[in-house]
Amino acid sequence: MQVRNWGRWGPHDEIGTLNHITPDSIAAACRLVTAGKVFALGIPLQRQGPQSGTRQRFNPIHTMFRDGGDQPKDAAGVVEMQGYGGSDDWIVMPLQCVTQWDSLAHVFYEGKMYNGFDATLVTSSGAAKDSIDKTKDKIVGRGVLLDVARHKGVRALASGYAITVDDLEATAAAQKVQVQRGDILLIRTGHMSRYLDKGDWRHFDLDESPGVSVHTAPWMHAREIAAVASDNYAVEVRPSELAPFRSPFHICAIPNMGLTLGEIFFLEELAADCAADGRYAFLLVAPPLPVTAGVGTPINPYAVK
Amino acid sequence: MQVRNWGRWGPHDEIGTLNHITPDSIAAACRLVTAGKVFALGIPLQRQGPQSGTRQRFNPIHTMFRDGGDQPKDAAGVVEMQGYGGSDDWIVMPLQCVTQWDSLAHVFYEGKMYNGFDATLVTSSGAAKDSIDKTKDKIVGRGVLLDVARHKGVRALASGYAITVDDLEATAAAQKVQVQRGDILLIRTGHMSRYLDKGDWRHFDLDESPGVSVHTAPWMHAREIAAVASDNYAVEVRPSELAPFRSPFHICAIPNMGLTLGEIFFLEELAADCAADGRYAFLLVAPPLPVTAGVGTPINPYAVK
Amino acid sequence: MQVRNWGRWGPHDEIGTLNHITPDSIAAACRLVTAGKVFALGIPLQRQGPQSGTRQRFNPIHTMFRDGGDQPKDAAGVVEMQGYGGSDDWIVMPLQCVTQWDSLAHVFYEGKMYNGFDATLVTSSGAAKDSIDKTKDKIVGRGVLLDVARHKGVRALASGYAITVDDLEATAAAQKVQVQRGDILLIRTGHMSRYLDKGDWRHFDLDESPGVSVHTAPWMHAREIAAVASDNYAVEVRPSELAPFRSPFHICAIPNMGLTLGEIFFLEELAADCAADGRYAFLLVAPPLPVTAGVGTPINPYAVK
Amino acid sequence: MQVRNWGRWGPHDEIGTLNHITPDSIAAACRLVTAGKVFALGIPLQRQGPQSGTRQRFNPIHTMFRDGGDQPKDAAGVVEMQGYGGSDDWIVMPLQCVTQWDSLAHVFYEGKMYNGFDATLVTSSGAAKDSIDKTKDKIVGRGVLLDVARHKGVRALASGYAITVDDLEATAAAQKVQVQRGDILLIRTGHMSRYLDKGDWRHFDLDESPGVSVHTAPWMHAREIAAVASDNYAVEVRPSELAPFRSPFHICAIPNMGLTLGEIFFLEELAADCAADGRYAFLLVAPPLPVTAGVGTPINPYAVK
Repeated sequence: MQVRNWGRWGPHDEIGTLNHITPDSIAAACRLVTAGKVFALGIPLQRQGPQSGTRQRFNPIHTMFRDGGDQPKDAAGVVEMQGYGGSDDWIVMPLQCVTQWDSLAHVFYEGKMYNGFDATLVTSSGAAKDSIDKTKDKIVGRGVLLDVARHKGVRALASGYAITVDDLEATAAAQKVQVQRGDILLIRTGHMSRYLDKGDWRHFDLDESPGVSVHTAPWMHAREIAAVASDNYAVEVRPSELAPFRSPFHICAIPNMGLTLGEIFFLEELAADCAADGRYAFLLVAPPLPVTAGVGTPINPYAVK
Repeated sequence: MQVRNWGRWGPHDEIGTLNHITPDSIAAACRLVTAGKVFALGIPLQRQGPQSGTRQRFNPIHTMFRDGGDQPKDAAGVVEMQGYGGSDDWIVMPLQCVTQWDSLAHVFYEGKMYNGFDATLVTSSGAAKDSIDKTKDKIVGRGVLLDVARHKGVRALASGYAITVDDLEATAAAQKVQVQRGDILLIRTGHMSRYLDKGDWRHFDLDESPGVSVHTAPWMHAREIAAVASDNYAVEVRPSELAPFRSPFHICAIPNMGLTLGEIFFLEELAADCAADGRYAFLLVAPPLPVTAGVGTPINPYAVK
Repeated sequence: MQVRNWGRWGPHDEIGTLNHITPDSIAAACRLVTAGKVFALGIPLQRQGPQSGTRQRFNPIHTMFRDGGDQPKDAAGVVEMQGYGGSDDWIVMPLQCVTQWDSLAHVFYEGKMYNGFDATLVTSSGAAKDSIDKTKDKIVGRGVLLDVARHKGVRALASGYAITVDDLEATAAAQKVQVQRGDILLIRTGHMSRYLDKGDWRHFDLDESPGVSVHTAPWMHAREIAAVASDNYAVEVRPSELAPFRSPFHICAIPNMGLTLGEIFFLEELAADCAADGRYAFLLVAPPLPVTAGVGTPINPYAVK
Repeated sequence: MQVRNWGRWGPHDEIGTLNHITPDSIAAACRLVTAGKVFALGIPLQRQGPQSGTRQRFNPIHTMFRDGGDQPKDAAGVVEMQGYGGSDDWIVMPLQCVTQWDSLAHVFYEGKMYNGFDATLVTSSGAAKDSIDKTKDKIVGRGVLLDVARHKGVRALASGYAITVDDLEATAAAQKVQVQRGDILLIRTGHMSRYLDKGDWRHFDLDESPGVSVHTAPWMHAREIAAVASDNYAVEVRPSELAPFRSPFHICAIPNMGLTLGEIFFLEELAADCAADGRYAFLLVAPPLPVTAGVGTPINPYAVK
C-alpha cells in the first residue's frame, strides 16, 4: 500500500483534512438540528480512567487550591478574606488521556510530520509545526455515526476485529446515510461498552480491541472526510495488522494523509438515539483547547440532533 | 439588596440557571446559523498567559512525554519502537486559568454553596456537589453579544467602570436584539483588547477592570438567562463596589442565583463581525470538560453564525 | 493498649520524638565514621516505581523544559540563545511516593494531629501545624540497623509477619548493638528484596508485607528513639493486626507518640556491609526537603560508616 | 582562556570532579564535627519563592490529596475509612527551583555534555548520560565556607561584582582555612540577604548579582575541588563578563570541567557561626534525590560542625 504524500494541500498547511470543512457544510450541519437534543461524547476526567501506562500516559490528577476547609471562620475572617471563601482547583493530565483529538504532529513517518515538516521540530518546547492550536476554530461540522457493531447485530465487535471498507459501506447503506466531503466520521465498535458494563476502565489502553483496518485509509482519503473518531483507544484495530508497526493506520492517516483522529469517544447514548430515530447525521461540535505547540487536546464533543 | 435564595429549583438541582436552556431553545439557536462562520472564543493555553498569581493560579505549563529527539535512529530502532516515533504531551493547569466556566461550587455564601449544600462538601477530594461535570451536556444554546464598549463608542470601557442595567438595556436596544430566557449572555467591555494590543497578558488578573455592576444581578435573574460571560477576568467590575467583599456579583450570582459565569472570553473577532452584519445572536457551543468533582473548566467556546 | 497522649513535650512542639536528638548525640554519631563509606538509602524517582494507587499516590512523573533538541542550530543561534543551550527539568510527585519521612500531620486520631492540634488545620492550603518543614534541620544522628530478616536467617520475613518486641531485642542482642535515646532506627524486613529481585516494583504498596507489630510502639516510646524507618511500604505489618484500622501502628506512633516514620528505605547494601563488619551503628543523615506546610518529604538518606 | 577538555577521567565517567571525594576525605570530614550543630542550607519550597520565570522555571506548587476536611464524620465513617483519616500531599516543581545541584547534563558546549556525550542524548525522556542520579551516594565530604562578603566587610557584595581568584585566596587566608582536594566549596556573596531582609524573593532569578568570575574556573580546577555552591542564583556573576554568553562560568565548569554546581544555598546562619568560632571547615552532607535521567535536584544540605 502506498502511504506517502497523500492529501497535502500546500507547503504552509498544518491542518490537513480539516480543510474539507467549509462554511456551507457547517451551515448545512446546523440545519440538521431539529429536536435540540445534546449528546456529550467526552468521558469523565478522573483518576479511575482508561490509562494504565501506554506511552507513559496517566489518568487526570485533579486537586484543589482552596476548599471548604479554607473558609473564613468568623466575621473578622470574612473581612480579611474579602468574602465567604470559595474553591479553586487544578489538574495534571496528559492531553491524550481522555476523549481527545490528536494533532498532526502526533506521529512521524520516516523523520517527518504531516506536510513534510521535520520531526525534530517537536522538542521539549512542543511542536513548532502541526500543533493542535492550529485547529482552534476548525472542528465543527456534520457528524456521521457509523454504528458497525449494531449493524452487525452485536453489543461489541470482537477484540482484534479489523473493520473493513465493506463494513463501513454496508453500515452506511443500512443506516441510509451517505458519507460526504467534510464529514466528521464517528465509528462505533461497541468496545467501550465492555468497560462501562463492568464499571472499570483499567487496561482499556492495553487490551486488544476492534477498530478500523489500515486498509480503510484510502477509502477515507477518497471520501475526503475531515476527521474520524471511534469509541476505542486508537481508532484502529489492536493488535496491529502490519507488524512490526504498532499503529499502521496512524502512520497512514496522520503524517501522510493529514487526517485528524479522535479517540475514546463515548458513543453509547448517541448510538441508541440514532437507532431509535434512524437519523445518523447531526451537528458535531468538538472544540480543541488551543494549547500552544500542543500535540493533542482533551475534548467533550457535542453531537446535537 | 436581597441576595439569598434566588433561583432555586429544588433540593437536588446542581446546575442552576442552565435549566433555562431547553431543547426548543437549542434547536432555535441552531437555526440562527446561516453563514457557517465560526468564532473560537478561547485564549491560548501557554506560559505567557493572564495569571500573575490571583488565588495562587498560574498559567498552563505544557510539556512533552516524547518528542522528535526520541525518534528511532535506524531501521532496527523502527522495529524496536514499533514505528517511526511520535510525540505525546501533558499539561499542568488551574481549571480557571484561561477562558473558563465556573462551577456552582466555586463561591460560598455564609457557609453554603448553591442550593444549600454545605461548603465543607468541597474538600481536597473536590466538590461533592455542584461540580462542573454536572453541566457536561448543558452548555449549548443561543448566545447574545452585548457589546457595551462599542455601543458607548470606545475601544474599551474605563478600568473600574461598573456596567449598569441601563447600559445593558441601551446596548441591546441599539443592537436590536432581545435578551431571552435561556440565553448565554456575552458582555464585551473591550478590556481584553488592552492586553492584546500590547501583546502582554501580565497583570490581567490583578489590574482594575471594567465589568458588570453587582446591581445587574436581579436583572439577569429576572431575564432568566442561562449563563453570563465577559472578556475581563471576573465578569464583574474591579475594584469591588461593595467592600470588603472582593467579588460581590460572584456572591449574588453563584451561590445564591445559581448562575454559571464565564471568564476571559476572547470576543474581539466575534464583536467585529456582529458590528459588521448587525446580527448579535448566534449559536453558542461551549462544552465543559467533565472533570469529576471539578469546580471549573477550561473551554474554547464556539460562536457559530 | 493505651494509645493516647504519649510523648508530648509541650503545647508548641511540632516535631515530637525528634527532640530526643541532641548536639551530643550528633557529635557522637559522627565519631562512628571510620571508613568513609556512604550508603544511599533512597530508591530511584521514576515512573516504574512502587506506587499502584494507594491513597491516590502515583509514581514520580519527570519531564523536561528544555533538552538537546532545543540547542541552537548555528552560530547565530548561539548568539541569540546566549550560549550553547542546556537542559532543565521538572517533576510531579506525591511527597510520599518514594523513600520518605511522614510529618506529624500525616495521620489523625479522633480529630486531632500530634500535640492536640485540630485536624481541620490541614486544608487544601497544607498543614498549618506539624508540617514537615518544622523538622528541616533535625534529621541527623545515630542510625542503628536492626536486620531482623538476617537475624532470623531468611532473605525476607514472610508477608504478614508482625515483628515483635522480642524480635527487636533478640536482633539487637545478636548484633551486639544497643538502642539508645535519640537513635534513628532502621528495621530491615527484607521485603523490598522481593521486588528488587524481580526488577518490578508493582503492587509494592498494595501487597501484604512483614513489618513491625503495633505492640512495638510502647517499646519504641520507652527507648526514646527519635525516628523509625523500614524497607517496606508502611513500617508496620500488613494486613493490619487490629481491624478495622488499616494502620494501627501509624495511629499510635504519629498523632499520639509524635514519632517520625520513614518508609521505603533501601537497606540491602547497608545491611550487607553491617553483616560483613559487624557494625550496626553509623551516622545517619536524612534531610527533609523543607516543604512549607507539607505532610511528607522524599529523601535520600545517607548512612555513613 | 582554554575551556575545553578539562578534567576528564575516562570515557565512562559521568560524575566529574565528584571523583575527588574519597573515603578518607569523608572520614576526615566527619572528624571535624565536635559541637553537633546542624545548619540546614535549603530554602523553603513554597509558592513565594525565587523563580520569576528564568528558563520557564516556576516556584513549587504544593497541594493535597487528602486533608482534615476528608476525615470520617462518625464511627461508621471510621470503620469505612479504616481509621481516623489523615493527609497526603504532592508537589509540582522544577528540579532547579530551590536550593539545588545541577547535573553534568545541564549545560552543553558545542553540542556536547560533559565527557563528550552528545547533547541529543538529552530528550523528552531525560538525560541518558550525566544525569543527577549518577551522583546518588557521592555528595558528602568536607565543606569549606569562603565568606567573601564578610571578609570584605560588607553585608553583601555589589550586584555585578565578579569575585576573583585573589578574593578567594585572600578570604581563605584571612579565615585560616585551606582549600583541599575533594572539598565542597561554599562561596558566600551575601546576595541572598537582600531578599531575606525585605521578605520578598521576587526577581532573585532575574536581578543582577555578585558571583564568581569565569576566570576562577582554572583555579577551581587546579585545586581539585569536588563541587562549588553559592548563595546567589547561578554561582557566577550576573551580568555576564563574556557576552554574548549568558553563563560563561557554567560553560567552563559543567560540560568542560565536570564540576557540580550548587545554587541558592542559604548560608546566613552557617556564616554567622563560622565567624563566631573561626571554624570554616565542616562536614557537608547534601544528598541528591536520585531522579532517574534527571538534570537537577532540589536539596536541603546539612552543614554539621
